[in-house]
Amino acid sequence: MVSKSQTKLITSLQQKKYREQTGLFVAEGPKIIGELINENFKLQSLFTTDASQITAENHFHINDADLKKISFLKTANTSLAVFEIPKPKPMQDSGLMVALDAIRDPGNLGAIIRLCDWFGVQQIICSKDTADCFNPKVVQATMGSLARVQIHYLSLLDFFKATNIPIYGGFMDGKNVYSEKLPKDAIIVMGNEANGISEEIIQQITQKITIPRFGKTQKTESLNVATATAILLSEFRRSTET
Amino acid sequence: MVSKSQTKLITSLQQKKYREQTGLFVAEGPKIIGELINENFKLQSLFTTDASQITAENHFHINDADLKKISFLKTANTSLAVFEIPKPKPMQDSGLMVALDAIRDPGNLGAIIRLCDWFGVQQIICSKDTADCFNPKVVQATMGSLARVQIHYLSLLDFFKATNIPIYGGFMDGKNVYSEKLPKDAIIVMGNEANGISEEIIQQITQKITIPRFGKTQKTESLNVATATAILLSEFRRSTET
Repeated sequence: MVSKSQTKLITSLQQKKYREQTGLFVAEGPKIIGELINENFKLQSLFTTDASQITAENHFHINDADLKKISFLKTANTSLAVFEIPKPKPMQDSGLMVALDAIRDPGNLGAIIRLCDWFGVQQIICSKDTADCFNPKVVQATMGSLARVQIHYLSLLDFFKATNIPIYGGFMDGKNVYSEKLPKDAIIVMGNEANGISEEIIQQITQKITIPRFGKTQKTESLNVATATAILLSEFRRSTET
Repeated sequence: MVSKSQTKLITSLQQKKYREQTGLFVAEGPKIIGELINENFKLQSLFTTDASQITAENHFHINDADLKKISFLKTANTSLAVFEIPKPKPMQDSGLMVALDAIRDPGNLGAIIRLCDWFGVQQIICSKDTADCFNPKVVQATMGSLARVQIHYLSLLDFFKATNIPIYGGFMDGKNVYSEKLPKDAIIVMGNEANGISEEIIQQITQKITIPRFGKTQKTESLNVATATAILLSEFRRSTET
C-alpha cells in the first residue's frame, strides 16, 4: 500500500521543479537502486514487490498494481526507490572531462554518463540548459553509472575562461583525431543535438578535431551526439593510456 | 487540405503491418525528404506548408493545422512525405558489415544506421526481430542516412553459417580491440539492449573482442549498444584504413 502523500510526492518528482524543492529523485529496478546504495546515495524510501527486500523501516512491501501506479516506466520493474540528491563534490581541474553544451535528450545524456563511467571520466560539466541528470529517464538510461560520475551544472563559458586545460571540440574542418597527439588532461565539448556547439563556446575551443568519415558519398553531416562522444572518449583513452 | 483517405493511409503507416501491406513509409522534414529523393527513393506524395516546394502533381500544399494532424512528430516540421519502400538490392559478401541481433529501440537503430553511413558500411544485416528500419521513429533518427545504407532482414544464423567472413562480437573476456589486428572484411555483431547476443548466435562468433574499460571501479557492466557500435566501427576503420 502506497499512501496518497507518498504517491503525490513520487509523481511530482518527474518534474525538475519538485526535485529541486524536495532534494529527492526516483530510481527504478533492483540493479540501479543497488548501485546507488553501494555508492552511498541516501535512500529516503524503497517500494518493492519482493518481500525479501524489506529490511528497514523505510522499506515498503507493495503489490504489482501499487507499483504500476507510482512507476514512471512503461513496464514497471519490481522496485522503486526515492533517493536524496547528493551534495555536489568539489570540482577537479585535471584529467579527462566531458562538457555538454545544451544536450537535451535524456537518452543521450544517460548514454554519455554510462560512457564516462566506462572510460573512467570522473567529471561531466553541463551547461545549465542541459537535461537534468536526475530526470527519471536519464537515471534509467545510465543503468547505475550515475552513481559513479560527478556531474556539475554551471556556466561553461565561466569554467572555460578560468581553466588552463586544452578544450577540444568536433568540427568538420578539424584535425584528424586518429593522428593527433592527444593529452591526458583535456576537456571534450559536445554540442546540442540540433544546433551543435553554441557560438560563444566555439570561441573558447582551443583544439578543433574531427572524426574521419569513410562513406563514399561523404554526405553524412553528423553523428548522434552520444555515438560521437563514444568515439572521442575511446580515442583519448586508447592513445594516452595504452 | 488532406483528404480523409490520405489521412487514414498516413496514420496507418505508423504500423509495420500497414507498411508491409502498402509498401509505403513516411519521412518528415525537408532534409530527410530531400536526401531520400536524391538517392532515388520513389515519392508517392508530399505534403508541405511551403508553397514554393509544390512542383509536381503529387505535391500538396497544406496549412500548419493539417500538417499537425498527419505528423508523427511532437513538433511537426514543414513537410511530410510518403515514399515507396525500395526493393532490396543484392546482398554483398565482403567489406565491413554490421549485424544486429534483436535491436529493439528505434533510436538505437537510427543511430547505428547513421554510424554505418559515416563509416562507409554499406550493408546492415538485421535479425527478423530487430526494429523495422521504416518505422517512422527510425527514419527520423537516421537523419537521412537511411537513404545510403542497405538493410537486410534475414536469419542471422543462416547467413553466418554460409559466410566465410570472420564474425566479431563484443564480450567482457574478449581480446582488446585496440591491440587486435583487425581485417577489412568483417561482420560485427551487436546484441539486444537487455539480453545481449543470443546463445545460438554466440556459437557462430569466430572472434571475441572487448572494448577496454578505464573506470577505477570496473563496475560498469555494459555500454549502450549504439555507443558500443560507434567505438568498434571507429576502431575497424582507424586500424585498417588509416
